[in-house]
Amino acid sequence: MNSYLLLGTILSPDTPSHLSTYKAMLIRDGHIADVFSTIPSTDIVSSDIPRIDTGTALIIPGFSDIHLHAPQFANLGLGLDEELLPWLETYTFPEESKYKDISYATTMYTAFTKALLTNGITSSVIFASIHTPATLQLMSLLERAGLRAFVGKVNMDRNSPNYYQETTEESIAATTDWLTAARQFKQVRPILTPRFVPSCTPKLMKALARLADAYQVPVQSHLSENRDEIAWVRDLHPECHNYLDIYRHYGLLRGPRQTIMAHCVWCTEEEKQMLVDYEVIVSHAPFSNADLASGIAPIADLQQRGIPIGLCSDISGGHELFMPRTIAMAAMMAKERATLCGGHTLTTMELFYMATHGGGIFPQIGHFAPDYAADFLIIDDSNLCLPNHSYTPFQRLQRFLYNGDPRQITDVYVAGKRCQR
Amino acid sequence: MNSYLLLGTILSPDTPSHLSTYKAMLIRDGHIADVFSTIPSTDIVSSDIPRIDTGTALIIPGFSDIHLHAPQFANLGLGLDEELLPWLETYTFPEESKYKDISYATTMYTAFTKALLTNGITSSVIFASIHTPATLQLMSLLERAGLRAFVGKVNMDRNSPNYYQETTEESIAATTDWLTAARQFKQVRPILTPRFVPSCTPKLMKALARLADAYQVPVQSHLSENRDEIAWVRDLHPECHNYLDIYRHYGLLRGPRQTIMAHCVWCTEEEKQMLVDYEVIVSHAPFSNADLASGIAPIADLQQRGIPIGLCSDISGGHELFMPRTIAMAAMMAKERATLCGGHTLTTMELFYMATHGGGIFPQIGHFAPDYAADFLIIDDSNLCLPNHSYTPFQRLQRFLYNGDPRQITDVYVAGKRCQR
Repeated sequence: MNSYLLLGTILSPDTPSHLSTYKAMLIRDGHIADVFSTIPSTDIVSSDIPRIDTGTALIIPGFSDIHLHAPQFANLGLGLDEELLPWLETYTFPEESKYKDISYATTMYTAFTKALLTNGITSSVIFASIHTPATLQLMSLLERAGLRAFVGKVNMDRNSPNYYQETTEESIAATTDWLTAARQFKQVRPILTPRFVPSCTPKLMKALARLADAYQVPVQSHLSENRDEIAWVRDLHPECHNYLDIYRHYGLLRGPRQTIMAHCVWCTEEEKQMLVDYEVIVSHAPFSNADLASGIAPIADLQQRGIPIGLCSDISGGHELFMPRTIAMAAMMAKERATLCGGHTLTTMELFYMATHGGGIFPQIGHFAPDYAADFLIIDDSNLCLPNHSYTPFQRLQRFLYNGDPRQITDVYVAGKRCQR
Repeated sequence: MNSYLLLGTILSPDTPSHLSTYKAMLIRDGHIADVFSTIPSTDIVSSDIPRIDTGTALIIPGFSDIHLHAPQFANLGLGLDEELLPWLETYTFPEESKYKDISYATTMYTAFTKALLTNGITSSVIFASIHTPATLQLMSLLERAGLRAFVGKVNMDRNSPNYYQETTEESIAATTDWLTAARQFKQVRPILTPRFVPSCTPKLMKALARLADAYQVPVQSHLSENRDEIAWVRDLHPECHNYLDIYRHYGLLRGPRQTIMAHCVWCTEEEKQMLVDYEVIVSHAPFSNADLASGIAPIADLQQRGIPIGLCSDISGGHELFMPRTIAMAAMMAKERATLCGGHTLTTMELFYMATHGGGIFPQIGHFAPDYAADFLIIDDSNLCLPNHSYTPFQRLQRFLYNGDPRQITDVYVAGKRCQR
């Protein structure tokens, strides 16, 4: 079925301040061909085109989670009494190191892929582990599930436990092999993934920059999450002006919207200007910031400067994979930041936009307009609607975002195709 | 069935730092008669006593939500782009005023009661509206559902919209009638509920203090939630030292653990000492604090001073009724407060204790020991357990608290009886 007309209450966050409502949407070859405010007659859309009527359902864009660690999936909800650096040593590295076992990786990545589908995450930008076979297996599982993703084999050649670290040469060779092998996938693509500055030698960072040029792939990493981490980075790189300048210095700040930096909680004025200048995408992880006691990222400030922002779960630093709760959490954290530190808040609409557009790393997703990807969720919110109450489409959306549940996502479509769940 | 032996993985938060694990629990006449670390033989517990085997289920105490507004239930998830005072005018008062219609109240309170059961809230301390018939109807519905609760008819005779306000005389007369009528209930009991200082004249507050004496009932209200509110209260009562001193001055600070004050976000040193001196229970509403941009209550500080603390949803100022998410939110907010303002964090165990003991307003609830109430939840967490993983009982609890869902609560018992849901 290459073309069909989808009927329902279609909500399209066209901009961070405007929600369009449509009654029908024509889908062709995986993309939106047209949208309609009233149901089009067969004069306008031929009766040859099948119609899928979702009744009273809401239809919204799929969620885009642009920073999460797939091999930390088993740690969800555990170890949350720790800060970043002890949490890495005690919980994270031991778990990630298990993914050298391809059988363990297959079992766990299968469960992880299912969780993405359950939660309506149609596009994601993922940190895998240092292991090439497991990373390719994850890419294969995501591709087979019909999901859209960037996946990164992680690089780390210093300051890591000896049971979970590569030599510089191993890391470069494995990354080259992985980039070559990853050419087999279509909707799932590679992204270079130096874990963070403390884990990567200058030599490795330079080599990754050359690979980014050679293979034309984007880059993701972490930036200014935690004050202890920042102090450590400063000690490691006295030659650079600031944390972000280290990535720049070693060639890892790529073209516009080709670099994603997670967190950016404590960025200096100078770093914020660099985020603007290089059009870096910031991935905002409000659950992780709070779970790891990192602080509250100044997202309203970054947004006002024009920096592209996407939301993320950052599992398992964050304990929540359901994007609507991340939207609510981001709204709450922005309010608390405004109250405690000054500045602006973020509206539900602004956050819904961030949660579907992913900062632009996947072009043409996040709302419904001609040539945009047909990535959408069908939502049955009937159990959120109280007796004797009527709701506007925006109120239904608010109720779903604040009080909804993954069960209300009845179907997930990516590139016009319904995903098997 | 007055006596039975319950078998399962029984988790009892005996103190804020200690979780006991039992294999069996003898229940008699609505109370715990004994607990067992191994399954007792029929020599120890007679074979005449029926045994209920919950298999691999977790059994935990029921949740205690000690501050929530039942007539705001319909507003859950709506209006969350506002601060406290405009939110009251735009969303809250118009909705609460609908409860003068007993038919509307019955429909909505039926849905509300069902929501408490779904969420495993076995005991709660509730603000109703100013309407006596609707408040009695709520008490009746809760009693019939088998739940444990304190419910308050709200008093407000100043600074409220003319469509939702009483005269002082009306308020006193209605409260007296309501207290008399409320004698019919057993597990559901009345609590005097002056909304907050700005809504109650000194004359009304004094009259409520006399009623508290005459009927021997506790008192609940709000304290120091929002900086604008505090400035307003200061202007209204130049005769008092601080916000809490106004309640004291007019006789509304009752005996030990007989007064509940919600929020306490901005309490001064002097107020904190008064909370200690009067053994006031603080109800902590982390979702509401964040949703309404109120700030972060200094709960770790209050706890260290020995002030009794319970958790609450404060719906619909807070948008979340599922207590495990409130536990996670309280943990996250305490971490962010520690990072941004200094001070201590709160552990999962400390918060689980608060979430089940309710600050002591209901004596003998919250853990499993002889003479404690047999209020408990049966949890099927099998879908939270990953393949190839084994978990300690505490890890299972953590996973349920951070990643669980009301669906995992398969049965709710209060006073030894299974509630119909």
